[in-house]
Parts: sequence; structure tokens; C-alpha cells
Amino acid sequence: MITVQVDLQERSYPIYIGSSLLDQGHLLVKHIVGSEVMVVTNETVAPLYLEALLKGLKDYRCAQVILPDGEQYKTLEVLGRIFDGLLKAHFSRHCTVIALGGGVIGDMAGFAAACYQRGVAYIQVPTTLLAQVDSSVGGKTAVNHPRGKNMIGAFYQPRCVLADTDTLNTLDERQLRAGVAEVIKYGLIRDAAFFVWLEEHIDELLARNPLALAQAIERSCHNKAEVVAADERESGIRAILNLGHTFGHAIETGLGYGTWLHGEAVAVGMAMAANLSRRLGWLSTPEVKRVLNLLEQAGLPRHAPREIDKARFMELMAVDKKVIDGHLRLVLLKQLGQATVTGDFRPELLEATIEDCR
Amino acid sequence: MITVQVDLQERSYPIYIGSSLLDQGHLLVKHIVGSEVMVVTNETVAPLYLEALLKGLKDYRCAQVILPDGEQYKTLEVLGRIFDGLLKAHFSRHCTVIALGGGVIGDMAGFAAACYQRGVAYIQVPTTLLAQVDSSVGGKTAVNHPRGKNMIGAFYQPRCVLADTDTLNTLDERQLRAGVAEVIKYGLIRDAAFFVWLEEHIDELLARNPLALAQAIERSCHNKAEVVAADERESGIRAILNLGHTFGHAIETGLGYGTWLHGEAVAVGMAMAANLSRRLGWLSTPEVKRVLNLLEQAGLPRHAPREIDKARFMELMAVDKKVIDGHLRLVLLKQLGQATVTGDFRPELLEATIEDCR
Repeated sequence: MITVQVDLQERSYPIYIGSSLLDQGHLLVKHIVGSEVMVVTNETVAPLYLEALLKGLKDYRCAQVILPDGEQYKTLEVLGRIFDGLLKAHFSRHCTVIALGGGVIGDMAGFAAACYQRGVAYIQVPTTLLAQVDSSVGGKTAVNHPRGKNMIGAFYQPRCVLADTDTLNTLDERQLRAGVAEVIKYGLIRDAAFFVWLEEHIDELLARNPLALAQAIERSCHNKAEVVAADERESGIRAILNLGHTFGHAIETGLGYGTWLHGEAVAVGMAMAANLSRRLGWLSTPEVKRVLNLLEQAGLPRHAPREIDKARFMELMAVDKKVIDGHLRLVLLKQLGQATVTGDFRPELLEATIEDCR
Repeated sequence: MITVQVDLQERSYPIYIGSSLLDQGHLLVKHIVGSEVMVVTNETVAPLYLEALLKGLKDYRCAQVILPDGEQYKTLEVLGRIFDGLLKAHFSRHCTVIALGGGVIGDMAGFAAACYQRGVAYIQVPTTLLAQVDSSVGGKTAVNHPRGKNMIGAFYQPRCVLADTDTLNTLDERQLRAGVAEVIKYGLIRDAAFFVWLEEHIDELLARNPLALAQAIERSCHNKAEVVAADERESGIRAILNLGHTFGHAIETGLGYGTWLHGEAVAVGMAMAANLSRRLGWLSTPEVKRVLNLLEQAGLPRHAPREIDKARFMELMAVDKKVIDGHLRLVLLKQLGQATVTGDFRPELLEATIEDCR
């Protein structure tokens, strides 16, 4: 087992990464507050891993909420079901919420924990690659709004993250690839050596080679932990973790949540960010090609869906948390392995990129 | 104008108390973040004060959300309308929410600000006595759940509180009295001299004598600010601010939100807390009589509604944020002017109090 520490003073916590961790109840137990535990999971994950998780929690009064599976259910309305479950079980402020599932479950369970009785403890048990390398770490929780992704939420840190790599064995191909998109992101934004490693090991990752997966998860979590420790509430550098996300959120919102997977939309977004970075003279054409090649090898899309036209794309991008006073800012690449947040580009270049990448 | 400071390090803020403050736009302006301002108010308050407020905000891009008036609308569903309004106006993370209204508006607008894009600035402009002396100060925000009051919310501090005492001139009698209940609370929990002052000045308060009102608001805010500064997130002493609230919340939830005003339910709750404190040997019969007399003079109820029977009352009280591991704790009075939080009483005594006060 590997432990990566997220260093946030009194809110610091460990990320446990390894095989067979779900069976090791003692890992969770030391992070549980109180005697009441609410497991939030979904209809896909519950039959696979709920029993194993509950086995390690026999000394607690446990309850569960099982939500439908999919980004389209990450709404304020479905969030209400978690509160219903907590209150029906008469759980107090001294309870712990455990998120067992992918990014949607983690975001919703974390946000519910942030709000229930104005804040209770929670633990992330991510079961998808995307959640293990990205969404379960760093305390961003949220639900979507029909007009924008993750528009309603909280910064709220978990007590620990337990990433059992065995759970990736049941992940379907498409979900695995979506997770690889966020792994590639870390290489692009701040870890050029990792990008090269990924070019060399992408086939092993897709073949679910346990060693390659563990290495990729650890390296991703290290990168994320460092950025989050430097800027917990995204007043600056943390925004680079959103490479490809403004483009990607536009696709997710525009097509309707759940049509594309988040990681797929982010993959296209990264291709678009690379395209615009080339137009600004920061990336060379061969470098952009390397980005596109890696995405292609990972079986990820590189083109935005044609049903969202350019004007609509621009409109959707205008609803983004990085907008300041009506001015859009984007995460772009100064070079492979170095991201920057900038609003300093001519709109025509952005429009050309959108046209180019559809 | 009087200024009371709430001392919370980097989250410190002033409470401005005085006459004609709504017309003094400069007071608000220095606390507004960004160029976008969303005013959240209700159908009762909007026709009275929205125009005056907006007059001072001419340099900003302003939008407004006008909610229906009443505790029964303090729900997750109605909260969604604030998010709809913010997104429809394309407001960014650098916007400011202003709550213009009573406790319900303040709680909802504050919670919306806590969650919108994971947190934007907000300002409280309380227009009821209850909001000016209590709910607008201290950063507790929330909505209700059918099973329990204020069960979904956040600790989230405003940038300032602007209490224009002129707004109390349009407050109806019943609302004024409900506010007086929370004023009396401060005397009971930690300010015996203020309790005596209230016994002497209660008629002036009810007659809306401006000087008496200003003094009562200032003294209340001072008390609240000190307690909040000592324990922002209610890990200890802050719970004394909930004197009468566990009983009161049971009445509000049991009758259906909006049937009784919050302050009315709290008044009965304080009578019940005094009754139970007497049974524990802490208050004398004459002291309890003084509490009941003051509530009576203020025109407040002292008896719980008979339609909630004892068993149901106990059940409703079990859903309370002060419950730890299934064990109910209550704020009781060691003496007039000194509250304590305790779970150390025999259930029969609590049952006798409920029976006695119906």
C-alpha cells in the first residue's frame, strides 16, 4: 500500500492506494467520527462492493442511500435523497458519510456531508479510475445545474481517501478510458516526465496492468495533492487542474449531462486547449500532435460533437467559475508540462479553435 | 450609527446599527466584491425597501430574486430559485449576494452564497427585529427539511450586516414580538443585567421607542458577537444561543413550518427550559415566574400547542443538532443570566415539563 498525504494543516488527510484495501476495515475505522455511518453509493457499485465495505463496519450503526448511476442524477433534487436518508436514520452531527463510487457519488456525498447539520465528517472510497486520480482528492464537492456544471457546491475536505485498485477490475472500458484522460492532464499541466512515461505505458494502463495503474494513480495523486496544498480554495494556481474543463463542461452541459462521460469531454477540452495554445505560439505543431496521439491511443475523443455550433459553444463556455467580470479565462499550455490560466487571447483565435476541433 | 464588530480573524466583519442606513450606499459598497450584485428578498419586503437599496447600487450590475414570504418556503427546492437567478444573470464567482429581509431570507440567501460556485460574498440587510438581533449575525445559514429545522446548511460569514432600525416601523406587531423573544434570550443565557433592563423597558420596546430598540439591538448583537467569536462552529459554548430552540423547533416542525413564527416557538421553548431548570433545582419558582411574566408582557405564548402530544414532542426533539450518539442535550438555565448545555437530566423530568407546558 502507498500513502500520499494531502497537506492542509488541520484538514490534512491521507490517500491510501493499493490492492485489497476494501477488506482492511481498520484503515477506515481510524478516520470515522461517531458511531453512525451513512454509505452513499449507486445502483452499479452497490452490488459489487457495498457488502465488502459494510463487513469492515460491523461495530457501527450503518445506513445506506443507493442513487441511480450517471452524471444526469448529480442534481440538487437527487441530493435531497441523501438528506432524507440521513434524517430517516436519525443520524446526528457526529456521524460519518462514506462515498462509495465514482466522481458523481463522491461529489454528491461530499456536498451532502458539507451541508448536513452544517457539516459532518466524510470519507471517499473511489471505485473508478477518474475518481481515484482526481475527483476524490482535494475537497471539491458539487452538483450540476441545468445551466452549468458543478455550479452548486462546497470546498470540503474528506477525512481520508481509500483507493482500492482492485475495484478497477470491474470498471467498463469506456469508464477506464475516461479516467485516463484525467491522468494525462497531470502530465500536461505540470509533469512533463509523467507525460513521457504515459506515452510509453499507455497500452499497459489500458490493459489494466496493476503495477502501471498503481504508478499512474500515485503520480496523479501526488500532483493533485501538491496543487491543492498550495491553493485549497482555487484563488490561483489550483485552476490549472481544470485544463480542458471549460471546453469539456460546455460539451457536457450542451449535450445534456450523462451523454458523454466527464473524462471524454475533458479529453476533447485538452485537445482544444492544445490547439489554442498553438495559435498563441506556445505549443509547436508536433507537440500538439503528441497530445492528440496520446489521446487517440487512449481511445479518447478529440473532437467536439457537431450538434453544438460555435455560437452555442461560446455561450456555454461563458458560464464558468473562472469567468471574472464577464471575461472568460482558460487554462492553456505554455509548453508540455506547464499550464497557465489566461484571459489574454483574441476571441477570433478561440473561435477558430472551436471551428477546428468540431 | 453604532458599529459592533464580530471578531473572527480574517472573517471578521462589522454590524452597522442605526437609522436611515439603507440610504447610505457607501456603507455597503466597501463590502461588495466584484461588479455583480444579486439581491434576494421576498414579496413583503421588496415593495417596501428594494428600491431604496438599489438606489445605492447604481454602479453595479444588479439582479434580484423575490421569494414568497414565510418559513414554509425555506426549503431546498425554493433555494434552487436563487441559483436559477444567479445563473440566468450569468453571475460569476466574483459576485455579491445581498439578503434583504428577515431570518428566512437571510438564512437562504446566505446558504445560496455559501454554495454558489462553491462560495461567493454576501451581505445581510435584516429588516425584522429577529434578524437584526440574531439570525443575521454569526454565519449560520440553512434551509429546513420536513423532518427537522435548519438541517441543511453551512457556517458561512457575511461581509457585513446592515441593520437599519427604520425598517422596524413597517414590521407587524406579531413579528416585532417574535423578535423580542430572541432579545429576551440574551438576557437569560448570559446577561442578567440586560434581563432586568428588559423587565423595565419591555413596554418601550413594544411601543417601538427608537432609543430602546437601538439599545436592545446593540446589546443583543454584542452578546451574540462575543459568543460567536469564542466558538464560530458551535463545538461548545455557542450552543447556549439555542436556549429554547430544541423545544421551539419541535413545535415549528410539528405544526408545519410557518404556522407559528420562529420567535413564538422559541418563547415557549424558553418557558419550557425554565420549567425544566426549576425541576433540576437550578431556578426558583419566583425566578421562573419572572421569565413567564416577561414573556407574557411581550405578548408571547408560554404554552406549547396541545395538538402535539407528549410522545410526538419527544420524537420531534430527538432530531436536533445537539444530539450526540442518540442522547439529547438541552440548553438549560443554571440561574437567570447563565445557561448551560446538558444531557444530564432524567427523562421523566423532561416529560413532566412537556406535560406542564402544554
